[in-house]
Amino acid sequence: MLLEDTAPAVPRIGVWTVGARGSLATTVVAGAAALEAGLVAPTGCVTELPPFHAVGLPPAGDLVFGGHDVVDVGLPERARRLADSGVLPAALLPRLRGAMEAADLEVRTGVRDGCTEPQSAVAARLTADLADFRARHRLDQVVVVNLASTEPLPAHDPAHTSLTSLRAALNSRTDVLPSSSLYAYAALDAGCSYVNFTPSAGACLPALEELARLRGVPHTGRDGKTGETLVKSVLAPMFGQRALKVRAWAGSNLLGGGDGATLDDPEAARSKIESKRRSLREILGHEVEDVVHIDNVPALGEWKTAWNHIAFEGFLGVGMTLQFTWQGCDSALAAPLVLDLVRLTSLAARRGEAGALPSLGFFFKDPLASTEHSLSRQYDALCAWAAAAPRDASRHASLAAATVPGT
Amino acid sequence: MLLEDTAPAVPRIGVWTVGARGSLATTVVAGAAALEAGLVAPTGCVTELPPFHAVGLPPAGDLVFGGHDVVDVGLPERARRLADSGVLPAALLPRLRGAMEAADLEVRTGVRDGCTEPQSAVAARLTADLADFRARHRLDQVVVVNLASTEPLPAHDPAHTSLTSLRAALNSRTDVLPSSSLYAYAALDAGCSYVNFTPSAGACLPALEELARLRGVPHTGRDGKTGETLVKSVLAPMFGQRALKVRAWAGSNLLGGGDGATLDDPEAARSKIESKRRSLREILGHEVEDVVHIDNVPALGEWKTAWNHIAFEGFLGVGMTLQFTWQGCDSALAAPLVLDLVRLTSLAARRGEAGALPSLGFFFKDPLASTEHSLSRQYDALCAWAAAAPRDASRHASLAAATVPGT
Amino acid sequence: MLLEDTAPAVPRIGVWTVGARGSLATTVVAGAAALEAGLVAPTGCVTELPPFHAVGLPPAGDLVFGGHDVVDVGLPERARRLADSGVLPAALLPRLRGAMEAADLEVRTGVRDGCTEPQSAVAARLTADLADFRARHRLDQVVVVNLASTEPLPAHDPAHTSLTSLRAALNSRTDVLPSSSLYAYAALDAGCSYVNFTPSAGACLPALEELARLRGVPHTGRDGKTGETLVKSVLAPMFGQRALKVRAWAGSNLLGGGDGATLDDPEAARSKIESKRRSLREILGHEVEDVVHIDNVPALGEWKTAWNHIAFEGFLGVGMTLQFTWQGCDSALAAPLVLDLVRLTSLAARRGEAGALPSLGFFFKDPLASTEHSLSRQYDALCAWAAAAPRDASRHASLAAATVPGT
Amino acid sequence: MLLEDTAPAVPRIGVWTVGARGSLATTVVAGAAALEAGLVAPTGCVTELPPFHAVGLPPAGDLVFGGHDVVDVGLPERARRLADSGVLPAALLPRLRGAMEAADLEVRTGVRDGCTEPQSAVAARLTADLADFRARHRLDQVVVVNLASTEPLPAHDPAHTSLTSLRAALNSRTDVLPSSSLYAYAALDAGCSYVNFTPSAGACLPALEELARLRGVPHTGRDGKTGETLVKSVLAPMFGQRALKVRAWAGSNLLGGGDGATLDDPEAARSKIESKRRSLREILGHEVEDVVHIDNVPALGEWKTAWNHIAFEGFLGVGMTLQFTWQGCDSALAAPLVLDLVRLTSLAARRGEAGALPSLGFFFKDPLASTEHSLSRQYDALCAWAAAAPRDASRHASLAAATVPGT
Repeated sequence: MLLEDTAPAVPRIGVWTVGARGSLATTVVAGAAALEAGLVAPTGCVTELPPFHAVGLPPAGDLVFGGHDVVDVGLPERARRLADSGVLPAALLPRLRGAMEAADLEVRTGVRDGCTEPQSAVAARLTADLADFRARHRLDQVVVVNLASTEPLPAHDPAHTSLTSLRAALNSRTDVLPSSSLYAYAALDAGCSYVNFTPSAGACLPALEELARLRGVPHTGRDGKTGETLVKSVLAPMFGQRALKVRAWAGSNLLGGGDGATLDDPEAARSKIESKRRSLREILGHEVEDVVHIDNVPALGEWKTAWNHIAFEGFLGVGMTLQFTWQGCDSALAAPLVLDLVRLTSLAARRGEAGALPSLGFFFKDPLASTEHSLSRQYDALCAWAAAAPRDASRHASLAAATVPGT
Repeated sequence: MLLEDTAPAVPRIGVWTVGARGSLATTVVAGAAALEAGLVAPTGCVTELPPFHAVGLPPAGDLVFGGHDVVDVGLPERARRLADSGVLPAALLPRLRGAMEAADLEVRTGVRDGCTEPQSAVAARLTADLADFRARHRLDQVVVVNLASTEPLPAHDPAHTSLTSLRAALNSRTDVLPSSSLYAYAALDAGCSYVNFTPSAGACLPALEELARLRGVPHTGRDGKTGETLVKSVLAPMFGQRALKVRAWAGSNLLGGGDGATLDDPEAARSKIESKRRSLREILGHEVEDVVHIDNVPALGEWKTAWNHIAFEGFLGVGMTLQFTWQGCDSALAAPLVLDLVRLTSLAARRGEAGALPSLGFFFKDPLASTEHSLSRQYDALCAWAAAAPRDASRHASLAAATVPGT
Repeated sequence: MLLEDTAPAVPRIGVWTVGARGSLATTVVAGAAALEAGLVAPTGCVTELPPFHAVGLPPAGDLVFGGHDVVDVGLPERARRLADSGVLPAALLPRLRGAMEAADLEVRTGVRDGCTEPQSAVAARLTADLADFRARHRLDQVVVVNLASTEPLPAHDPAHTSLTSLRAALNSRTDVLPSSSLYAYAALDAGCSYVNFTPSAGACLPALEELARLRGVPHTGRDGKTGETLVKSVLAPMFGQRALKVRAWAGSNLLGGGDGATLDDPEAARSKIESKRRSLREILGHEVEDVVHIDNVPALGEWKTAWNHIAFEGFLGVGMTLQFTWQGCDSALAAPLVLDLVRLTSLAARRGEAGALPSLGFFFKDPLASTEHSLSRQYDALCAWAAAAPRDASRHASLAAATVPGT
Repeated sequence: MLLEDTAPAVPRIGVWTVGARGSLATTVVAGAAALEAGLVAPTGCVTELPPFHAVGLPPAGDLVFGGHDVVDVGLPERARRLADSGVLPAALLPRLRGAMEAADLEVRTGVRDGCTEPQSAVAARLTADLADFRARHRLDQVVVVNLASTEPLPAHDPAHTSLTSLRAALNSRTDVLPSSSLYAYAALDAGCSYVNFTPSAGACLPALEELARLRGVPHTGRDGKTGETLVKSVLAPMFGQRALKVRAWAGSNLLGGGDGATLDDPEAARSKIESKRRSLREILGHEVEDVVHIDNVPALGEWKTAWNHIAFEGFLGVGMTLQFTWQGCDSALAAPLVLDLVRLTSLAARRGEAGALPSLGFFFKDPLASTEHSLSRQYDALCAWAAAAPRDASRHASLAAATVPGT
């Protein structure tokens, strides 16, 4: 129609969550619907702050949701449980039901443990799910977001070092990639952007970086910075800027919910702990006695408590301490960041940026392609990147076309 | 002599503390001596960080100390008491004795309460003490630093609005200026730079700003940011950058030592509390339920404990909290900042900057000539200012000569 | 009838709350109904612990509720608001509706400020409300419980010293007694037991003690020990038993809800603060630097946070600290204690005990007729008192008859 | 001599510490000397409280010190280091030097790892050291106190079940008993009382209990309750007495000094953690989600910080929390308790009590012969035991003689 031809193209963005029926993905879908209906304020949504107003980001309410999961409890039931836990306001539930049901219909079965097919076959199935989602909803872009449980980090494998060797291995082996990286492979290969909100490997392998650049799609991650590390990323620079010497930094994290249960597995916890440790050393610029514990405390439900004790030394060697206790609800902290990341990654795709995005480190404990961990500097870098002159809409349209595989 | 004529002029800097025999001034003198003797590392000294290496600041060990006070307990005895409290390492005392005694000899009687002379006469005496100090030690510059007990803020007085009206009033009245401002008047009038480390009024009156510009000398302040507010100045921007809504920020400060006793006077405490409150509102950009208590707890000795409880709201209205407890030794935190401020203010003087310095807000709860309260932004501004091209030494020498009144 | 003559008399107990539509009274009624319906476990109910099993206390579910209030928001609506705040489980609301409505029908208008009648007339009206409640429900006993907002403590008044002078004054004056004491007067005069859960004066005046003994009814109070003071009452004895010297004990209390608003009035706060201070001194047996702040922080809703910082000294004068942070929901903490107090006070009445009860100090910050503040000792005293041989049922019946005025 | 015959016998008590040159033993010796010289108040000394005044305990200043150790740094040097750390007041050092040197002369070489003799031979050497100490100082009693580093708990061994089988095994094997138990064996066999202040096995084996009863000497332990567990032992009963349901109790312990380094060994830490866990379960009377971490943080020096987070449930299932942070100096907390235990154990020996003492549980995390963990109940039991009628002095004299082996 004439109208469509002349109106500025409003890109249609799809969001494909891995872990689509978890607490976080459910909160993301519920939150987007609540924002669209004007039921809640965009508290916690960074991309609703003034520096992002003129950037032309897609509205959260226009996003279309789908995803992979292996559990049977659907989003409507999960939303009900989140309301019982105080994460979702119970009064909103009836008004969000339609959105939860719609997203649940778009959930496809994900990768199960102990699969005996070659991983290339599994990837082909995942890619087909993405292509189908995109086609049915006539989406201009799909952003795949990893919200699944934390995995152990993979051992070094020569197959990870180049795309050629990776493809060869996928054709014959069942264990080349951990699940998170297999999803990332399928996403990038399908021309979808990819966001890794967990500490799992995801797209963080040379072969996958190569694939992202080949397909011309961006990716970002990893490990959303929602609580203890968020606070660390402002306190550690403070000590540095005041020339105060941090002697020991000890942290104890008590996690309820599914997150805690996963991290009771010491192997899985190790990747999260390493990620926390690395950022501290990089901010302070020197080694420090550090202690990090992550414990599963089911009694805390969806809540999480982190206590940190920082022993530091001032002038004349005088010892002092700073302690903090963070009591947060991870789903409520992470969900708006997921929406932010989808909006910003879709912008990067529209601008034709490919590979790991160095400017989104603000959101992550262990940012890809960046060693900056100071929150304030990360924020300034994010704002500067967002403010950079956007490409024109026609370019976006052609780019979007170009990145749809097979078109 | 030939050597002297060609070598770059090393300016001789004097430091004149108001409150010269207090815990903080004593720690400043002891610390400068310990640094000079290589007994301690410059922990807590911001101007020893890399961005300040090439700036050409005067070494802390070259500073010459004197000051005003009205108490009789000398610096050597005060240093001994600080060692008992764990602020000064007891093992250092014998090696610092000479420096403590030298500084104590330079202490002159300050302004006593209930003085019946016109304040112009008092100011003339203070100015004479400064000129005498400068002359005896052949100083190129003197920086006057207010470290005295916090005063109540002065009521509005028309005499404060211009230098002409101020001078007229000083000639006839005994109560025109609070003590801190009378010292500032004398300092600026004598061509000395002035640093106000307390929340008292000091040079923060229009008539004194006029005087600073007339004499071509810089001043800065106020209220050194050493503990609770330091932490606030990184946490509050964090909430803002994450679009999290701070609902209530409550703080309880327990102070031992002289500082606590002074603030038991509700009038004096009010100026400190107001200064803390203002900075919070300015960082967050909106009103917030805030509570600030400052209590005198002599049992804490030289130590200070601050507990802050921040109730904030995330996505979907979920309430969360962050608490922190800061346990610090104020003298050890403040002393290196005083040395930093002396070094930086002497640089400003050398560069010919006059009036309130807008780039030193990093050090203060209630910075003059600036509304920026984010520590990270303040740090970047400070580094940028320090890195600005320094004037050549000859210019410094002539400037120094020019600012000595009567020369 | 034959059946009634031989079956053991099950006394019917009425509970008359002052502040009948407040958060706490609403939680009490909802909780009793939820217990009766088996919807919740008796968590927080002391009288459900083993030492009280054989004592023959009236079941919480058999209690009949009524009360005085001056606000119009009824219990059903108040219950809905408490569910929104997370105090009452939202899922229970429909099943509790009947109980909330029944109790709301029994609410009568209480004492309003600025009354111009002599207080004897007001008391007569209150007494009539109690008699009417008792008669309509054929109650064996009525326990009046003060749950109203905290009042300033009354100034000394000779009228308070004896029942004769009190009665004379009530006949002519409008300001003899603060409201809490006027309710207590009416309750005792009507032969009802009286429980003062607030720090207000209540029955704590010599004239009212005389009245309680004259009428042969017990009373107890005051100021329910639900949070900070509860913790203090175990920590302070710990320091004492270990010969550790508490140097300073500072507490900061942040209160949301109505309680916080009331205590923003410094006069009302003073009675609460004094009550907290006194108990600390009495436990430690010596003076201590103490600091108590109570602040209204509406953002906390029904929740309350208390931070305490205890500086203590060990062997060789070494200084150490203990800090605690209590985050509790006052209504949920207090409601089961109110049910406990009703049950225990009704037992005392049945046993013929009159006047202030010395054995119920376990429940109060400022226990009547006792200077024991150690929680553990108070618990042992309570258990011993409860275990004392109960009077036989016939004695109870005659006692009950005897204490009903006019029967 | 006549004088000695008629004066009341003042028993001479020797204290033999295992770990005689550690921080704690050094603080014990220094503290006893400082008390004797009147340099410090008996803060932290339980046996100086009123209930123990009339019991006739030996003065701390009369104790004679010796002990076993395997390190070379002597008590005077260790005392100097403790003064640098702020544990001993530096000003006292010169006045305590004589006592430190005297005790250091009485240190004998203890059991080294990897000994190849049968353990009976090692024990004989230890016993000889004790006999020699007793003889040279003409001591009426010797109390052996284990203050050495925590060991892993021993595996079950049939040799531990009876004295006969133990003696047989000691004659032929080098690994029957862990070091702590070998010292305990030697002590008891020599007729000395034995106090185990650590979580190691010590005398807590059936064969050693049999030996204690055979020799007629008392022993007590284990694991001095100085910090986190002390607080737990008053908070846990509080929750129980209020019928509040503890859902999860998480603790994080940061230890500096030697204690922390030892517990970095997971095997050694396990015995300490198990001891902490057991007492919590026994106080609450039910299982609870618990988390205990003990970390070595050398930056804390002699200080120790414990954070505990307690999630509990109140009426209507409302979740609440209590957190505490304990910052203590273990040596200063433990030293007066060691003096208390020596005094009380010597009283038990004088009264002829043999085997594990059930009344001293007040001092221990894991009390022998008792399952009572409530501090308040333990205190009452201790006072009652101390107040029990003491035996007359003549009986003590004969008893003392009887328990000296070989006399």
